[in-house]
This record gives sequence, structure tokens and C-alpha cells, in this order.
Amino acid sequence: MKSPTDQSNRPVVGIVMGSDSDLGVMEKAASLLNQLSVPFEMTVSSAHRSPERTADYASSARARGIRVIIAGAGAAAHLAGSIAAQTTLPVIGVPIDSSSLRGLDALLATVQMPAGVPVATMAIGAAGAKNAAVLAAQILATSDPDIEGRLEEFKKEMAAQVAQKAETLRKKL
Amino acid sequence: MKSPTDQSNRPVVGIVMGSDSDLGVMEKAASLLNQLSVPFEMTVSSAHRSPERTADYASSARARGIRVIIAGAGAAAHLAGSIAAQTTLPVIGVPIDSSSLRGLDALLATVQMPAGVPVATMAIGAAGAKNAAVLAAQILATSDPDIEGRLEEFKKEMAAQVAQKAETLRKKL
Amino acid sequence: MKSPTDQSNRPVVGIVMGSDSDLGVMEKAASLLNQLSVPFEMTVSSAHRSPERTADYASSARARGIRVIIAGAGAAAHLAGSIAAQTTLPVIGVPIDSSSLRGLDALLATVQMPAGVPVATMAIGAAGAKNAAVLAAQILATSDPDIEGRLEEFKKEMAAQVAQKAETLRKKL
Amino acid sequence: MKSPTDQSNRPVVGIVMGSDSDLGVMEKAASLLNQLSVPFEMTVSSAHRSPERTADYASSARARGIRVIIAGAGAAAHLAGSIAAQTTLPVIGVPIDSSSLRGLDALLATVQMPAGVPVATMAIGAAGAKNAAVLAAQILATSDPDIEGRLEEFKKEMAAQVAQKAETLRKKL
Amino acid sequence: MKSPTDQSNRPVVGIVMGSDSDLGVMEKAASLLNQLSVPFEMTVSSAHRSPERTADYASSARARGIRVIIAGAGAAAHLAGSIAAQTTLPVIGVPIDSSSLRGLDALLATVQMPAGVPVATMAIGAAGAKNAAVLAAQILATSDPDIEGRLEEFKKEMAAQVAQKAETLRKKL
Amino acid sequence: MKSPTDQSNRPVVGIVMGSDSDLGVMEKAASLLNQLSVPFEMTVSSAHRSPERTADYASSARARGIRVIIAGAGAAAHLAGSIAAQTTLPVIGVPIDSSSLRGLDALLATVQMPAGVPVATMAIGAAGAKNAAVLAAQILATSDPDIEGRLEEFKKEMAAQVAQKAETLRKKL
Amino acid sequence: MKSPTDQSNRPVVGIVMGSDSDLGVMEKAASLLNQLSVPFEMTVSSAHRSPERTADYASSARARGIRVIIAGAGAAAHLAGSIAAQTTLPVIGVPIDSSSLRGLDALLATVQMPAGVPVATMAIGAAGAKNAAVLAAQILATSDPDIEGRLEEFKKEMAAQVAQKAETLRKKL
Amino acid sequence: MKSPTDQSNRPVVGIVMGSDSDLGVMEKAASLLNQLSVPFEMTVSSAHRSPERTADYASSARARGIRVIIAGAGAAAHLAGSIAAQTTLPVIGVPIDSSSLRGLDALLATVQMPAGVPVATMAIGAAGAKNAAVLAAQILATSDPDIEGRLEEFKKEMAAQVAQKAETLRKKL
Repeated sequence: MKSPTDQSNRPVVGIVMGSDSDLGVMEKAASLLNQLSVPFEMTVSSAHRSPERTADYASSARARGIRVIIAGAGAAAHLAGSIAAQTTLPVIGVPIDSSSLRGLDALLATVQMPAGVPVATMAIGAAGAKNAAVLAAQILATSDPDIEGRLEEFKKEMAAQVAQKAETLRKKL
Repeated sequence: MKSPTDQSNRPVVGIVMGSDSDLGVMEKAASLLNQLSVPFEMTVSSAHRSPERTADYASSARARGIRVIIAGAGAAAHLAGSIAAQTTLPVIGVPIDSSSLRGLDALLATVQMPAGVPVATMAIGAAGAKNAAVLAAQILATSDPDIEGRLEEFKKEMAAQVAQKAETLRKKL
Repeated sequence: MKSPTDQSNRPVVGIVMGSDSDLGVMEKAASLLNQLSVPFEMTVSSAHRSPERTADYASSARARGIRVIIAGAGAAAHLAGSIAAQTTLPVIGVPIDSSSLRGLDALLATVQMPAGVPVATMAIGAAGAKNAAVLAAQILATSDPDIEGRLEEFKKEMAAQVAQKAETLRKKL
Repeated sequence: MKSPTDQSNRPVVGIVMGSDSDLGVMEKAASLLNQLSVPFEMTVSSAHRSPERTADYASSARARGIRVIIAGAGAAAHLAGSIAAQTTLPVIGVPIDSSSLRGLDALLATVQMPAGVPVATMAIGAAGAKNAAVLAAQILATSDPDIEGRLEEFKKEMAAQVAQKAETLRKKL
Repeated sequence: MKSPTDQSNRPVVGIVMGSDSDLGVMEKAASLLNQLSVPFEMTVSSAHRSPERTADYASSARARGIRVIIAGAGAAAHLAGSIAAQTTLPVIGVPIDSSSLRGLDALLATVQMPAGVPVATMAIGAAGAKNAAVLAAQILATSDPDIEGRLEEFKKEMAAQVAQKAETLRKKL
Repeated sequence: MKSPTDQSNRPVVGIVMGSDSDLGVMEKAASLLNQLSVPFEMTVSSAHRSPERTADYASSARARGIRVIIAGAGAAAHLAGSIAAQTTLPVIGVPIDSSSLRGLDALLATVQMPAGVPVATMAIGAAGAKNAAVLAAQILATSDPDIEGRLEEFKKEMAAQVAQKAETLRKKL
Repeated sequence: MKSPTDQSNRPVVGIVMGSDSDLGVMEKAASLLNQLSVPFEMTVSSAHRSPERTADYASSARARGIRVIIAGAGAAAHLAGSIAAQTTLPVIGVPIDSSSLRGLDALLATVQMPAGVPVATMAIGAAGAKNAAVLAAQILATSDPDIEGRLEEFKKEMAAQVAQKAETLRKKL
Repeated sequence: MKSPTDQSNRPVVGIVMGSDSDLGVMEKAASLLNQLSVPFEMTVSSAHRSPERTADYASSARARGIRVIIAGAGAAAHLAGSIAAQTTLPVIGVPIDSSSLRGLDALLATVQMPAGVPVATMAIGAAGAKNAAVLAAQILATSDPDIEGRLEEFKKEMAAQVAQKAETLRKKL
């Protein structure tokens, strides 16, 4: 995975995960941000095991140039909510399937936020991590025509891939 | 509720609901956007009963100056996903509790989007509608310091209200 | 699997799946349609990644001679609903278990359709795909005595197989 | 509600409900069939309390001219499945919210049919009952251009109503 | 597994399963009935694929000397309910985990019976199959002191095994 | 409700409920036992608040002539299981909807018993309480032809009532 | 409700609720602590709307003499977990039914804590609030024979009340 | 695992599990108690298969010097509740994922206790077992500064480990 430090641009998206065991899922977000040429940073911080670190990360993010935060966590997934409590930046939550309840716990703990403190919740797992990257890019694209252009390209390519798969299936029949 | 046509600014947020019976929930989003001085438009369109209208709304939104779309729907809530399929604008989904399953159906149908087409999903019902407005403002604030300032104010006020309620409770004891 | 192009008859059932990764499930529908000698076509189209393709498929189906559509998808499974929004043909939905929620999301997103736009929802997974084929045949059989005869035969055979399995078990005891 | 005996045509759709307490929901199906001019019959039969009556109803339906059966039931909703076991006619199931589990039990008991015996399952409750009527009409329309015409009209009207509601909302703002 | 035909006594418990693929679970019931010296018969019959066979089995059971019926099935598990509809013998239902919903569907379809037609529902899977045998023996024991004696013995042995396992654990520490 | 002390026969069924607030549900069991002329006793005992009372009740039941025990409880419904732990009599469990989870908690806490200690679990709430009475009668009927006769009558009457309701509906149309 | 300031003792239990709308539930905890003569304080603080206030409350609690904290919250109920992250005092969580999901969201968000940061989770709603008080007293009683004595009394009284209710029911029959 | 008999101190925490098959999960609690130098005992007892043993264990625990009890069980997990019914010691429940319902049954059966008899419920599975040990130590620490000191150390180490993992990730990028 291409690191943001390889890029001339300073990170504008922050990816945080509650545990390094979530990396397998969250690196899907990193890959897609790379693909869309959006510079990012990535770290580990737990809402419960390192609350100060999490609060510091969230409250200092804007000043460091971060404009969107992506937070992935499992079980009683409070990470995205804890971060959203400390910043007015848009926070995207990725529920991770890491307990016996298959991510239903993480989904509800991430999405059911009280009025005033939204978390933009994605699908459980890898699809959600990828979509967190796309949504982050869409948010940045509201004021960045270059990213907007790359997203239009990305969308066209998705449709083209579906058409190609349909063609492959047609030939196989 | 103050209409966007009362405002000098042209709408930058589009609120869409799947049925006029969702208005009781979705006007919470409108109220909060008004409170944050974010101009918006509001309409009804169904993913299933008026698919062309929905596709037209979504695909023409950017050109009309809309920068974020909020979509609220219940049951097999496909509205937000259908809109997200037609635009690269950020789409925020509000699951509405309008079936016997208490919004669990709407939540899963809104949040479990496939990779490539995110919907920023909010909590079920009124809390979610309010948060859709806050998230829309947060997204716009990534490039608008005025909205950012109002959000900081809004966040401080929330904390102040909690402190006040604590004080009221202390006196009551 | 015998392709419909091997048959003199033109396809009357359309099978659509949201992703080529759903083929393992959806080919059960194809096999059973072959077994019942119902000509079909099969393709890939996504409600979210290729919305125009999906809308075109659905709105042109009747003119191409398709009389029943089977749509299989997982997660926030909007494919069947998106197709039903564009046609008055009967649409059969097969929820697919492709997320950590084991198909519960796909089931609710497929079945909880609003009044006016039905999706005939089947069981989750392979049993549902097979039953989509049987239901498609039953629908065609309302005006086709040949298919009706084959369905009667199929039903008798199912009962006979149960009796045979009971006999096998009896001997084994 | 206009009775089928008021109509010159003989019933082609059979509506069955597990208990007369389900009438409030199932008459939505009857009303919509009337609206679409599809003649129907309506009766009560329980899979568990009157199994012979149910089996007789199902196995004699085709001979009596019935071409589609709609079955509504709550809790361990076996009615649609029991009927589907006895006929090759298409059977549409309407799960009814009549237990403390809010229809989730009825939904799973109706939809999770084993391979070979499909039940075309609708949404829980009134929306499902209405859609059962629409699907029945769609099934009949596969060989009846008159019903097909009425369905096209019905679909256009739905879209028109959405547009009208949007206009009403626009004026209200 | 010792067959009931090896026993001088004629079967008093009937075990029925919806599919031969349920044998792995249902033979736990058979083993425990053997252990408790309760003669039984075991067969396959499906509520949906062989409804006549199922109705015949249930309605003839009493005359054949059967006094308790155990029925195991998965998914929309109607087998126990279908049998209970046809007999006044006690019917014990074993929900089997054979769909992606992990037996929750089978549990609800088995237990949520309407007033008047009970199914004595056991736990999902192997524990439930074993308990069906114990409950059948308990029912027979209400008029058979021999079986009652064996059940008392069985209960004492369970408690003794727990004590032994505790002792093993104590030594291991 | 006719009390068992009004009857010459000594109680053979024991009804226990975890709280007197469960009486509204559990008296449905009492009424139906009265209707079937099965003498019963009824008391309150909690698995958690009066464990000795519950253990005493269960372990002395057989000696007092009780042959079947019905236990109704809500939430973490342990009453039936606690009783089953202390006796080899058949124990019937009625999950009661008395928490915000609508009886799902009571159902799972009642039905998911470990191998060796069955609880014959009924539907949640009033339908389950009625069925507990029917099942208790069915169990007693395995050795009592009089009760068996009344159950046959009861079953015929249920079917007759369904037929009558169907006739009423037919006239109403 | 008797206020802790009426007591000579300084508070040893802290009750915190996420919103003043939770007071109806949480005052059950206060009442029971009063009944057990355990001095307490009660306040409002939100994990999301007033994160600093919550962190300050938690991290200063021990120094203020608090020995157990009770935290009640609904929806994505992070309050108890946020407090547990900031202190090594025992933290008791009360999930509150304040969303359309009936407290299931609050339960999972409270109980599914990661290894290292426990929250002692109680039942959803009023029963849970009462039990939080009992558990707090049990914790204090591990080093306070007076509270232990009151708890023994409380336990005996519960059993006596059950016996009394049974007697009342016996007379009523 | 170091046994408590290796320690000069007499056990103050009792770990009980419903079955020796739960040892894999419950030894996580033992390991963490060892790490925190809290002496414990560990045994097997079933609420259902050995009710007397369980009642004896619970009612004699205080006299034996036990001050906190940890109980782990799966399915209809009544063990913790049964123990809490017999003692005023704090009882911590660990729901174990040992049925097809993935621990949801054990969670609800453990947590939804009636007013008056709390069980301090932990997360499902290994995380819950570890947290049971931490909570037990937190309870003991309310009157034991040594344990309190070790818990502070433990908490700091957790935060330090998170920081270290973040550093490792940073280097890897």
C-alpha cells in the first residue's frame, strides 16, 4: 500500500482503528484513497483503552489539516462516536465484524448516535471500509473538482466492469 | 419552518423523502438546517413508485447547485441508495421507523451498501434526521469557515445545555 | 448448465444477479428452469453500480419477450426492487447471504417493499434460487398447460423421493 | 368492499386467511383486486386448526378456476406453505403482525420455504396485502393484456401521485 | 444405533424428520431413547414436499401405538405443526439449524403456534434432539414407573458427571 | 375462574408463575384446563427472588400428585428451567412478553435448555398459555382415555369454528 | 426522593445519565439506594454532547469519594463505556429503551466492551436501574457489614413477598 | 495457568462454569486474575444438571471467604442468575457462544434479570471472561489499595500498548 508520506500532499483524511487487528479491514479504505489520490494518515487508537489519545487525535485533527476522519471498530464500537464528540469534522464510522454477533453490535453502537453528534455509518466490514474512502473523497470533492473528476471516472468504471462481467457470463452460458 | 425560498442563498442541500408520511421525521432535518443557516430544498420522490423522478432528481442535483443530498425512507428503504447510484455527491440516508419491524429493515436496507456506492447512514428516526442536517453542515464546512463557526457554536451549546440540565437536576434532588 | 441458446424457444424468464459472485447461487435457478424446460436468459446488473443498465434491462424486458424476472442480490439488496419499479412484469427476489449478517439484511431489503411495487421474495440462498425457478414456472403455467404438466410431475417426484428416503432410512435402522 | 359475486366473472384469485382477525389486513388485498377488476373469492382456513379444510381448499382450487392463491397468516405462519404443498398454482404469502414479535416470526415462517415449494412472500402487514393483489394481477397479466393495461395505468398513477405530493410539499414550504 | 425392531416392545415414540439431511441431528434423539429403553420408530416426511405422507403419518400414529411424536425440521419448519394439526398426541418439535439464519427461523416457525395446537419446542439442534427424547420419556413416565425410574437414574448420573468434571478440573489446576 | 378446590379431583397439573403480574397471561392456561376438566393448582414462585420456594415446589410436586408442571415467566425467564432441574416430571414453559424486548428474551431463556433437562416451550404470551393447558391435557391423555376424548372434541370444535367463521365472512362479502 | 444531601454520609455511589429524559428510569436506582441507606449523588452528562464533562466526572470520581459509578443511557449508549475508560472504579451500565429498537441497541453498545475495560451491564430499563442500585450495594458490602446486613434483609423480604403473593392468589382461586 | 493453591492467599474470587467445555473461555478470567495477583478458585457446576451443587456453592461461598463470583454459561445461560438468587455477593455473568444463536441467547438469559437480583453481565465470550476478572479486581479494589494499584498499572499498560501498536503501524506504512 502506497504510504501518504510518499505523496507530496499532506494528509487530509485520517483513518483510525480501535485495534491493530482491524487493519485487515481498514487497509481497504487506505487502498481506495490511494487509488483516488487522496492523501491520508492511518493510526490505532481505542476509545476505551486509550481515551486520551483518542480525544487528542480528534481535537487536534482539524489543526493538522485533516478534513475527514474515518474510524473503524468492532463490538461496542464507540470509536467513531468518541471522535465525533470531540470535533466538528465529518466522521465516518466503519462497523467491524469482530465479535460473535457478526457486527450487528458494532453497527448499532456506531449508527444510533444521539441528535447533535452524527457518525456517517457505512456497511459492516470490508465493503464499509471501501465506501468510507469513497465517501471521504465525495466530501472533499464538494470543494475539489479534481477529486470530483476522479470520482466520476471511478463511477463509470464500476458500470463498465458490470457490463464486462455480464458479457463474460453471456459467453460462458 | 422557514422555507429556502425565503433565503437569498440558493439551496445547497436537497432533502428527499420517499413518502409525504415521512415529513414528520424529515422536517427535523429542515429545522436544523434553518438553525444552521444552510439553504435547502425539500421534495418527495419514491425509489419504487417514481423511479424516473428519483433518477432525474439525483442526476441533475449537482448542476442545480446541490452539494449534499439527504434521503429519508422506511421499510425496504432504497431511496438513499438509488440516489447514490446516480450521483457522486455525498448522500446521507435516514432510516425511518414506518413498518412493524421498527426501522431495523430501513436501517439495514440503507446502510449495507455494496463497495463503491456509499450512503452515510444516520440513526433511525428523528435523531437521525437531525443528525443528517448536522452532517450536511459538517460536509459543507470542510470548505466554508462560516458554517464551521456555526457548528462550533452549536457544539458548545450542546455541552452547555447538558451542564444546565445537570444543575437543574442537582437543585431538584 | 444447458444454455437457453441451445433451445429453439426464445427466453421467457430473465435471471439477473447483482454481482458475478452471486453466480454460485443463481445458477441453481438456471438449472431448475432447464429441468422444467423453461427457456431463460441470465445476466449481471447492479442496482447501485450500473443503475442505467438495470433500468434498461427492466423496462425493455417485456418487449424482448420476457414474462417473469428473477433477481438475486445480497446485503442492501435493492436489485429486485429497482427492477420492479421499472416494469409490471412479476419480479421474483432471491436474497443472497453475502454479508456478515447472513442474508437477514438482503431478506428485509428485498421483501419489505412499499404498497404498489411487489417483489415475490424467496428464501435466502440456494433454496430460494431453486424456488424462484419453480415460481417462475408456476406463473407461466397459469397459461401454459405443458409447463403445468411438468410441475405436476416435479411435485410427484418430490413426494416420491421423500418416500424413498424414508425407505432407505428404515432399512438402515 | 365489492363482492366477487357482484361480478359477472368467476373468481380467479383465492384469498385465504388463517383467522377472521386477519380480515383488517387481508381486505386491503380484496380492495386492490376490486380496483384492478380482478374477480376473487375470500375465505378463512387455518393450517393448524382446520388442516383438512386447508388441504381441500388448496387441492381443489385449480379445478374451481382459481389461478393464484393469496394466503395471509401471523405467528408460526404456515398457511401459505401448507397451501403451496398441495397445489402447483402460484401461492402468495402475506406475513401478518399478530404476535409480540411484530411479524418477524410470520415473515420467517412464510419465506424460508424448502427447495421445491415456493411461497411468493410479501412485506409484513397491510403493504404486503396490497402487494399480494398487485402481484396476483401481474401474474394474471402474463396472459391477459387487459389486466396488463390496468397495471400500466396503476403504475403511472402511482408516479403521478408522488409528483403531486411533491408539489403540495413545495407549496407548503 | 439399536433399531426398535431389535426390541420386543412395539414403538411408542415416532421420530420424523423433514429431510434425510437432518439425520445427523435427529439420531441424537434415537440414541437417547435407546439409552432409556424406550422403543421408537424413525422416518422421513416433509410437510411441504410430501404433505399427504405427513398427514397420514400423523393421523394414523395413535392407532399404530405411538404415544408421542418427535418432529425435527429446519428453515420454515412446519413439520411439527403440521403433525400437531392432525393428532391429539403430544408433539415435540426440534428446530434444526439448516439455513443461513442459524435456526432462528426454524425456532420461530416451530414455537409460535396458534392457540389450540401446541408444539412442545426444544432447543435448536443436537441439544434439542436429545431433550426431545428425554421429554418423550418424561411424558411416558407419567404412567410408567419403569421409565420414571430410569429418568431418576439419568438425572442422578448427570449431576454425578458434573461433580466428576469439577474434580477433574480441580486436579488440573 | 373455577378453582380446583371446587373439584372432587385432586390437582394433577401445577401452574407456577414468576410474578403475580403474569396472572393475566397464565389464567388463560387455567381457563382452558377448566374447560378440559383437568384439575390444577396455581401459585407464584420466582426462580430468582424465592429460589428455595421454587426448588421445594418442584421437588415435592410428584409426591403431591402433580403430573405436569406449567411455568410462565418473562425476561431472563429461568423459572421453567429451574423447575425442570429439580424434577423428572414434564415441565412446560410459557415465555411472557414483559420486557422491552417483547418476549424474545423470555423465549430464548426458556427454550435453549442444555441436553438432559428439557422444557417444553410454548409460544410467547396468551397463545402459549392456552397451549400449555392443551399440551398438559395431551400428556395426561397418553394414559387417560377420558381426557383424550375431550381433546378430540376440542379439536373438532376448533375446525368447526373455522368453518363457521368462513361462512360468516362469505355472507358478509 | 430523599436527596443524598439529607444524609450525613458523603456520596459513595455516583449516578450519571446521558439525558434528563432518562430520569424516569434512573430515579429507580436512586430510590433503591435510599432504601438501602447508601448515599449517592446524581447528575447528567453525555458521552457525545459533553465529552469533557463526562471525562472529568469519571476521572475525578475516586478522589471525591465515589466508589461505584452507575451510568444509564439509550441508543448508541456509550456513557458507561466512556466512564469506564477513565477510571478503575467499578462501572455499572443501565441500557435504556429510548429508540425504536427497544433498547437492543443500548444493550449491545453497553455490554460488548473490549477486553480490559468492563461495564457491569444490567437489564434494559427500570429493572436494570433497580438492579444497578442492588449491585452497587453488593459491591460496597464486600467491605461493609452494615450494607451486607441490609442486603440480607432485602433478599429475605423479596422471598417473603413472593410467598405472600402466592397466598393472595391461593385465596382468590 | 498458575493455580490459586500455589498462592499463600486463600481464594477470594470463585469462577464457576456450566460445563467443562466452557473452560477454553473461562480460563481467560483465571489468567487475568493471576496476572492481577487475585487468588481464585475454579469449578464446574450446572444450574440445570446439578442444581443442588450450584445452590450449595453459592450459599456457602461467603463463608468460605469468596467475595465475588464469576459464572460463565451458554445457551439458556441460567448459571449466574441461579447463583445470584442464593447469595448477596456480587455475581458477574459471562455469556458464552455455545449454540447456533452465537451467544445472543446466553446474553439475554444472563442480563435480563428481574429487579432485586442483579447479574453484572460482561461481553459474550473471551473478552467477557477477561473483563469479568478485571471487574472482580475492581470490586475488590474498592477496599484494597494494592489491587487498586495493580489496576492503575494495568490501565496504563493498555494505553501504552495502543500507542506502541500505532507506532508499529506508522513505521509499516
